[in-house]
Amino acid sequence: MVRVGTTAEADSIGRLLYDFNREFDEPTPSPPDLADRIKRVLEDGDTLILLAGDGPDGVAVLRFRRAIWSIGFECYLAELYVVPHLRHQGIGRALMNVAVAEARKRGADTMTIEVDEPDTEARSLYESLGFSNRTGGSDGPVMYVYERDL
Amino acid sequence: MVRVGTTAEADSIGRLLYDFNREFDEPTPSPPDLADRIKRVLEDGDTLILLAGDGPDGVAVLRFRRAIWSIGFECYLAELYVVPHLRHQGIGRALMNVAVAEARKRGADTMTIEVDEPDTEARSLYESLGFSNRTGGSDGPVMYVYERDL
Repeated sequence: MVRVGTTAEADSIGRLLYDFNREFDEPTPSPPDLADRIKRVLEDGDTLILLAGDGPDGVAVLRFRRAIWSIGFECYLAELYVVPHLRHQGIGRALMNVAVAEARKRGADTMTIEVDEPDTEARSLYESLGFSNRTGGSDGPVMYVYERDL
Repeated sequence: MVRVGTTAEADSIGRLLYDFNREFDEPTPSPPDLADRIKRVLEDGDTLILLAGDGPDGVAVLRFRRAIWSIGFECYLAELYVVPHLRHQGIGRALMNVAVAEARKRGADTMTIEVDEPDTEARSLYESLGFSNRTGGSDGPVMYVYERDL
């Protein structure tokens, strides 16, 4: 059910990412602009996109870069989205399971995700898959994302 | 006082990063191994290293990647370190000011940092420079880093 997305599917991927941001009332580029950017990052080679279902109905975007503290790569889960009417059927979990397996296969040592505090559904999913927002696992201090526009 | 570090200085950079991790009792590769990795990421071209002072006495490591939601780049501040005996003299702030300026110059739209909750000194510095751990600035929900080893 989960497969690797290619540049040939950039339009569908752009549409899913557009719907993702519209659902949360975030400003977003148009679907064609997003499709162009998806093509570009896929061509750059630092990005893996996973798609679920025929719609496609769900998408995960993974970015990779060489680590400094280990000989492998760091994987960053940039996006995870399932269309609203198909939620609570395990599509997000299926995407995440393949994401973890594919990241490992591509030499990543760690996977990182940024999650808003109130997004309890996503947090539960990630925690059930072994992710923690505490340094060094369950015992360490909470890790925050700090960000600013430039 | 702050300058761009090159592969010629990889040994000094590796030593600083080694001291950084030792100070916090974290496992770390050896200084030569870190120097090799620094050379590699500098050659890859996705990394900018800033050095402060003659020691050098401080280092900032910035990683860049093409953004999906904008036409620019995302900048991630991977490391910021000042040697213990020269702290509280503005070296960290000087590194950060150049980091922000250089990231902008290289086309980054955003800068992201991961910070542990108890690291109040770093958090204050970042907050004084306009960074926030809340989505959309001061009003939004707190943003967590979730992570796992693969």
